[in-house]
Amino acid sequence: MAEHTVKFDITENPVSVPTGTLLSEAAHLAEVDIQQPCGGQGRCGRCAVLITDGDVRRRSTLRLTSEDIKGGYALACQSVVESDVSITVPPQEKIERRLTTDRTVAEVQVPAGYDAHASQPLRRTTVHLTPPSMDDQTDDWSRLQAALRRETNIGEISISLDLLRQLSPILREGEWQVTAVLNSHTWDCPDCPAELLSLAPGEVDPDTPLWGAAIDIGTTTVSVWLVDLLSGEVKAQVAEYNGQISRGEDVISRIIYASKNGGEEELRKLVLDTINGLIEMACKRVLAEPNQVMKTTISGNSTMIHLLLGLPVANIRLSPFVTAINHIPTLSAPEVGLDIHPSAIVDCLPGVASYVGADISAGVISSGMEESEQTTLFLDVGTNGETVMGSSEWLVTCACSAGPAFEGAGVLHGMRATKGAIEEIWINSDTIEPTYRVIGGVKPRGVCGSGLISLLAEMFLTGLVDKGGAINTALEIDRIRQGEHGTEYVLVWAADSGTGKDIVITNVDIDNLLRAKAAIYAGFSVLAESVGFPLEMVDRVMIGGSFGKYINVEKAVEIGLLPDMPWDRFHFLGNTSVKGAYLALLDHKLRQRVTEVAGRMTYIELSADNKFYDAFMSAMFLPHTDLSLFPTVQTVIQDRT
Amino acid sequence: MAEHTVKFDITENPVSVPTGTLLSEAAHLAEVDIQQPCGGQGRCGRCAVLITDGDVRRRSTLRLTSEDIKGGYALACQSVVESDVSITVPPQEKIERRLTTDRTVAEVQVPAGYDAHASQPLRRTTVHLTPPSMDDQTDDWSRLQAALRRETNIGEISISLDLLRQLSPILREGEWQVTAVLNSHTWDCPDCPAELLSLAPGEVDPDTPLWGAAIDIGTTTVSVWLVDLLSGEVKAQVAEYNGQISRGEDVISRIIYASKNGGEEELRKLVLDTINGLIEMACKRVLAEPNQVMKTTISGNSTMIHLLLGLPVANIRLSPFVTAINHIPTLSAPEVGLDIHPSAIVDCLPGVASYVGADISAGVISSGMEESEQTTLFLDVGTNGETVMGSSEWLVTCACSAGPAFEGAGVLHGMRATKGAIEEIWINSDTIEPTYRVIGGVKPRGVCGSGLISLLAEMFLTGLVDKGGAINTALEIDRIRQGEHGTEYVLVWAADSGTGKDIVITNVDIDNLLRAKAAIYAGFSVLAESVGFPLEMVDRVMIGGSFGKYINVEKAVEIGLLPDMPWDRFHFLGNTSVKGAYLALLDHKLRQRVTEVAGRMTYIELSADNKFYDAFMSAMFLPHTDLSLFPTVQTVIQDRT
Repeated sequence: MAEHTVKFDITENPVSVPTGTLLSEAAHLAEVDIQQPCGGQGRCGRCAVLITDGDVRRRSTLRLTSEDIKGGYALACQSVVESDVSITVPPQEKIERRLTTDRTVAEVQVPAGYDAHASQPLRRTTVHLTPPSMDDQTDDWSRLQAALRRETNIGEISISLDLLRQLSPILREGEWQVTAVLNSHTWDCPDCPAELLSLAPGEVDPDTPLWGAAIDIGTTTVSVWLVDLLSGEVKAQVAEYNGQISRGEDVISRIIYASKNGGEEELRKLVLDTINGLIEMACKRVLAEPNQVMKTTISGNSTMIHLLLGLPVANIRLSPFVTAINHIPTLSAPEVGLDIHPSAIVDCLPGVASYVGADISAGVISSGMEESEQTTLFLDVGTNGETVMGSSEWLVTCACSAGPAFEGAGVLHGMRATKGAIEEIWINSDTIEPTYRVIGGVKPRGVCGSGLISLLAEMFLTGLVDKGGAINTALEIDRIRQGEHGTEYVLVWAADSGTGKDIVITNVDIDNLLRAKAAIYAGFSVLAESVGFPLEMVDRVMIGGSFGKYINVEKAVEIGLLPDMPWDRFHFLGNTSVKGAYLALLDHKLRQRVTEVAGRMTYIELSADNKFYDAFMSAMFLPHTDLSLFPTVQTVIQDRT
Repeated sequence: MAEHTVKFDITENPVSVPTGTLLSEAAHLAEVDIQQPCGGQGRCGRCAVLITDGDVRRRSTLRLTSEDIKGGYALACQSVVESDVSITVPPQEKIERRLTTDRTVAEVQVPAGYDAHASQPLRRTTVHLTPPSMDDQTDDWSRLQAALRRETNIGEISISLDLLRQLSPILREGEWQVTAVLNSHTWDCPDCPAELLSLAPGEVDPDTPLWGAAIDIGTTTVSVWLVDLLSGEVKAQVAEYNGQISRGEDVISRIIYASKNGGEEELRKLVLDTINGLIEMACKRVLAEPNQVMKTTISGNSTMIHLLLGLPVANIRLSPFVTAINHIPTLSAPEVGLDIHPSAIVDCLPGVASYVGADISAGVISSGMEESEQTTLFLDVGTNGETVMGSSEWLVTCACSAGPAFEGAGVLHGMRATKGAIEEIWINSDTIEPTYRVIGGVKPRGVCGSGLISLLAEMFLTGLVDKGGAINTALEIDRIRQGEHGTEYVLVWAADSGTGKDIVITNVDIDNLLRAKAAIYAGFSVLAESVGFPLEMVDRVMIGGSFGKYINVEKAVEIGLLPDMPWDRFHFLGNTSVKGAYLALLDHKLRQRVTEVAGRMTYIELSADNKFYDAFMSAMFLPHTDLSLFPTVQTVIQDRT
């Protein structure tokens, strides 16, 4: 057998190996350290190297795209030498970045060509007034209104009594020069006068931001983006668990809690505390004050919006499942209870139905699917799993309760995707030892949604759990043990964890994860069936949700959360709800489109027959009862066995 | 000299008297009691009798109209026998009624052809909704909105968050039949959606009133009319002194008080207490609840409106005298502080300038002068004396501070025109003994505005005061004495009064009355001069103000308050401010006209030069320095001497 020289760029000494030698073996000989967290199974992709010269044969390319292969990448654990080769070993960070596209929260792109003057309903303007005299005894408000009209070209302007009470002193304190903030447009009354929101003596530096906030109230997680409405830039992003979580993990349990005496008001205050806290946190980051925030757009599912506004939620749960209102009128901060500017506008985005809320209308807008000729399957993976299918021609939607497992709640050591969260895991198929990556590079404190998907996939592929999700107690390793919550697998020993305690995953956790993924899969598959559009003909699958940016599509397919399709059809959009709120905050035409989209979507009630239940039960397996629906996973399993 | 038989209808025995005998003397002979409170001076008109047969010569017809004379009336003290005559002595009540036209508050006429459906912005309507089902999961608000649109033909409808919170339970409590009150029009946003103000389960009796209130906030007196908006009828009228009165009698002293620490807020609360108390009182009379009042229109001078709304008033007093706002936006009851329905609309009528407020815009509308080809002089006789002059072609206006004397305040024993107030007085020129008429026929407790005018005129004509207003201490009667406040005249002895104390008028009181009448006279005469329109060419003098209905034109001319003109040019309109508010409450087109009128009036600033001051000083006499301006008064005085 021919010998070949293998040269690694990071060492001066080449090694000589026979044809058919794995690159990982050659690296071992050359004393080059290539990580193989998955134990050389070709699953983790962490051993990817770049072939700069010579030929290798790739036995598996599971974690490589066709572009990767064209570019010369090969998995060291899955590729064998066929000639003399020169190999570049990329730094680990570079590999990680390539493998987990958009892993970190990308800086949000301001919409191309954003022009606050043209799109933004809020205007800040400084005006000089001619002072009154015996020849001109015009009242203060008429005087200001005339000056504002001249300056802005806005016709009618209204003023609140509160601001009217401050008007005369402000005009005189500013010696008849004042800076006004006006709102020129609301979705529910396009013909109404513009509204004067604030007035301050003197002028302001034009670079001073004009603050707005886009808010997503998830059942589990609340997200706030603080936006400079003048530049359109997101200046701070913060998120936190919804304070209501201790009163029920999903919308149904919240509704039940609300029906108790005082429960509705308690839940309202809890979520207000969360939002007000987040706004304060975001403002601190940019050295602003909450009372400088002049507008918020709020997205969220219908139950969350109802609870925020103190609207009764009981009928959302009772057949025929109707909301009090889907298209919420424009409100003011004090009546909602937000601790921002007292004249600030609160614009809750419109929902479609009890279980397809503003988060989905916003998500559709931020995906752009409603304008596309391509048929798109849009999935919002949160505590509620909502699906929208369609194109510029048609839009259908449905919802199911997935539970909060993928947001790290309802799982013993689950947590949000923040510092200290394990976000990706590989399990060595020989040793059943885990390797993981932690957000922020610190000691792990728990596992976030993407980590849980990764963990479940690895446990399944290594045989650590069976297709029913039960931990394989036949494996005699000390990481598998009986705990307080039944059988569990120790992912991190106390000594290595940031909490000083073992981090485990239990059979109960796995069951919750299975229910979540089964509900989502059943939702979109029944929806596709109900409109007679085959899933495999979908052009694009767009995935939103608070952890959408982090999800590993391969592993999500392996557990049967996402349909088994070519990877390039998948697009991860992150939190599409807050992004839609952000877009609607910037542009009144886009805001109008959210209303139109909410009106266009046809809601399909999944509870109307048994189809959903049947599909759900079939999906309660890894990846699914019907393995033929997951051909690539079938291949991996066959490889394994 | 020929003898004639005089026969009185109320006695069987005729008397025989020579030609030239006064009818009052004939009556005395016939033992017929004819009252002559003025001592036979022909001033009081109380001795009017009806000549049914024969001829008499009327030496004076001062208190008779030409229609009276044509109808056969003669004053017994001023008419002499020229033939055999038959005389009917009318009952005193009938004379009183004839002498004091419209003495009692006339029932307010609902505007001819009032059609709530066409004019009234508020609509009450009962709708039946199709309940939701699995085939129709429309949200509650869209369902109600659609039903209301079908029923009312109103396009867009808005709802407040408060009402939205009650919506779902109300719909279900009413088993999908509900009664709504909508406001379809506001002056400041005619293109805004209609607003749902209230919603109740089930239906209501169509005869149940839909309550609104017209309010006039005078500096001295606050008036409230409670109106059924469906029929347009005024169901209750109540009035009370403005609770702010103890903090200053005129607008200037109120403004000064407001500038003290907390003064503004204190004054706001005081007038709110008065208004809320009056609304409660009015509601009690018709067995309604204040929270059933769905709308109010509020009139008043600019300072009163500013204080009500908590707007700063300092600049009203400081040159160049500008208000914070003249055209107040539509407000809601809670933000103003009115204890009526929480969604009730508060519509403050527009003013023209700091000293020509909504009361004058409302007054003009209620006079109709702005639509007339005739040139009208409109006087609002209140604590502020405002004048409007003009026609459908032009309108000019001015204001002066008259003080509250004519409203019974600032006068030791002054009071409002309610039960127990002396409203007309005659002084016997021989005995200087007074006779008076008391509202409600009870023992007198004080003197109201019309009584004070009457008193001042009588005191002047009987020589009890001189032309400078000083009480004639040379008259040796025990009713004239030195009191705590200087020289005073005892009008009612303690034994006859309702308070158990003497009722007096002092030199200080008279001085206040002189200032008030001089300011008003100076105001309209300078205004007429400034536009070059001679006063005598005015077609009509229309008099408004809280006591306008009771005023005795003859006596008002005698003291120089009103110009000396043929009596038929005078029209007494009563409280034109509250009446204008009432008209604007009923009809949105009339409400629009108030705005137009306020915009059309040209304000003349009297303080701009010395003309007003000069005119005021000349008018500080009875009736005036220049007696040639008052030819009829000159005649009376000459008769006297």
